[in-house]
Amino acid sequence: MLAPNKLDALAVTSAPNVRYLSGFSGSNGAMLVSAGSATLFTDPRYQIQAAEETGCKVVIARGPLLSRLMAVARRKRLRRLGFERNRISYQEFQTLTDNLAPGAELEPVAGLIERLRCLKDADEIEGIRRAMQIAVRAFEQAVRRVRIGMTEADLAAELDHHMRAGGAEAPAFETIVAAGERSALPHARPGAARLKAGHLVLIDMGALANGYASDMTRMLCLGVPSRKLRHMYNAVLEAQMAAIDAIRPGVPAAKVDRAARRVLRAHGLEKLFVHSTGHGVGLEIHESPRLGKQSRDRLEAGMVVTVEPGVYLEGFGGIRIEDTVVVTSDGAEVLTRLSKELRIL
Amino acid sequence: MLAPNKLDALAVTSAPNVRYLSGFSGSNGAMLVSAGSATLFTDPRYQIQAAEETGCKVVIARGPLLSRLMAVARRKRLRRLGFERNRISYQEFQTLTDNLAPGAELEPVAGLIERLRCLKDADEIEGIRRAMQIAVRAFEQAVRRVRIGMTEADLAAELDHHMRAGGAEAPAFETIVAAGERSALPHARPGAARLKAGHLVLIDMGALANGYASDMTRMLCLGVPSRKLRHMYNAVLEAQMAAIDAIRPGVPAAKVDRAARRVLRAHGLEKLFVHSTGHGVGLEIHESPRLGKQSRDRLEAGMVVTVEPGVYLEGFGGIRIEDTVVVTSDGAEVLTRLSKELRIL
Repeated sequence: MLAPNKLDALAVTSAPNVRYLSGFSGSNGAMLVSAGSATLFTDPRYQIQAAEETGCKVVIARGPLLSRLMAVARRKRLRRLGFERNRISYQEFQTLTDNLAPGAELEPVAGLIERLRCLKDADEIEGIRRAMQIAVRAFEQAVRRVRIGMTEADLAAELDHHMRAGGAEAPAFETIVAAGERSALPHARPGAARLKAGHLVLIDMGALANGYASDMTRMLCLGVPSRKLRHMYNAVLEAQMAAIDAIRPGVPAAKVDRAARRVLRAHGLEKLFVHSTGHGVGLEIHESPRLGKQSRDRLEAGMVVTVEPGVYLEGFGGIRIEDTVVVTSDGAEVLTRLSKELRIL
Repeated sequence: MLAPNKLDALAVTSAPNVRYLSGFSGSNGAMLVSAGSATLFTDPRYQIQAAEETGCKVVIARGPLLSRLMAVARRKRLRRLGFERNRISYQEFQTLTDNLAPGAELEPVAGLIERLRCLKDADEIEGIRRAMQIAVRAFEQAVRRVRIGMTEADLAAELDHHMRAGGAEAPAFETIVAAGERSALPHARPGAARLKAGHLVLIDMGALANGYASDMTRMLCLGVPSRKLRHMYNAVLEAQMAAIDAIRPGVPAAKVDRAARRVLRAHGLEKLFVHSTGHGVGLEIHESPRLGKQSRDRLEAGMVVTVEPGVYLEGFGGIRIEDTVVVTSDGAEVLTRLSKELRIL
């Protein structure tokens, strides 16, 4: 990891990267990683937790972690020090600069740890599978309790409750429940709007379990769907399945996105698909690779990605169908084991 | 805000600052603020939501928001452009640099918006009060269901459920439930550990409602507390009340921290108090001012802060008592309307 960039060491400042490398799950941590050595820096609040969670050397810093980290780098005479350019604030970068030994240099790098993280090992895939099972079960339990007149927020609270009761630490992101026309907002916050007869309801949810996330979207229809709605739903479902079919090792991620877009174009709906087809999932809810038009990523076995095309029509509503999927040696395994039919209640 | 820094405009990149200035609550936004003009930049997913939430001019960018923002800055011939040095990644800073007009300059600034945000207006205080009421009610409801043998995670799930059912969007942070010796970890994640007779249980929780956070900590004791525990508990309670007594406009925040520390020193417990006394609360769970030894902040009416001294003894347990408090014109108003007695179950 360090050699191709000719680095003596890397300063790791992002929490999920620190967790990936060390096992430490606290909110304030940084690492100095050099050939054959990895040191975790955290503050006194996490002294006991760090000792429990990591096998790395631990330094408890009373001041800014990065000043302390740079003191260690100076002592070790590390000359070429990489830092995570998209995972460090400008101010933290200044702390590195201010504490740099004479003659040493800082090198901005991106995606070194993320590249390792996007290939999941068997334990990580099991972790995501479990986080997905928790979400699916919570969905099934909450859907049974859907009633006309309940608010979006009520239903979101039900979903979150069942995820927690099912073993999640937390929702992996703020659960989206969007009813009626509000489903046209791809990232609606659940609010005081009430579910009404005839409403289309978009539910986008995921669980966080042992640090790993899952992500899925399903649609409910509270009554008989219109012909227009059926047409749009079936088009999105066809696009979603075409995208999953396109997944296998070696395929450019952009090709999966194109597979979804091609189907929607054939149905005259391409312009209503305003986001990309998917993203990696793991310790973070959004990570590499990206399944979008501009993506230069290439799929490899062990990647875990969402596949989630959607169409959004202001004043009418939106439809999205989303699974979390593992890239396997010869295709894709869908972790979201739940029917994709429009659920008519 | 811009004049003292001789800025023509400020590029605002942090989500809570964008929300504060514009009302926009989406996850991807940036603003360009100049004298008499404020423009919000977001992506197509948020087109409808942005139109609903903000009165600012909205630009929907299909590429990187900051490239688009800089294009507008160039067109407006803004010469001296401030950026949020602690709220921007090194990489985003590079995007600003790469798109800078010849002769224009970038100026790192910090805390400009945060300084406005730390003084809450009446609506904001009502928002925090409501978020606190939701947390207090959830605590009362969940405590009634505490049973020997339930796990920390079960109890955390109960607390979160009642917060959601009570109107919270989400917990304001990952709810902490730490039982027995694990209470000595100031930021323990609730886990599979079961509540046992004799256990001390630390609960640190808060609700997020309409974007505003609340924060509180209370302790349960599952059985008759030992003499040592009573002594420690009473010392922390005395420290917490001394700190609240020290709060009034004009007082240095560090003095509030010293008030808590002085009490713990008198009880021989100062060394076990390993964090600072409190922090501001608002759109973020941790914001200005800081109530710590090194703080140079000074309290003003309208600030909302936590007061949360604690002592942590490895192998024994930890005790923390925390309220969210408003600095008023002549003292402090405690928003956490809930007894601070050790709750013996």
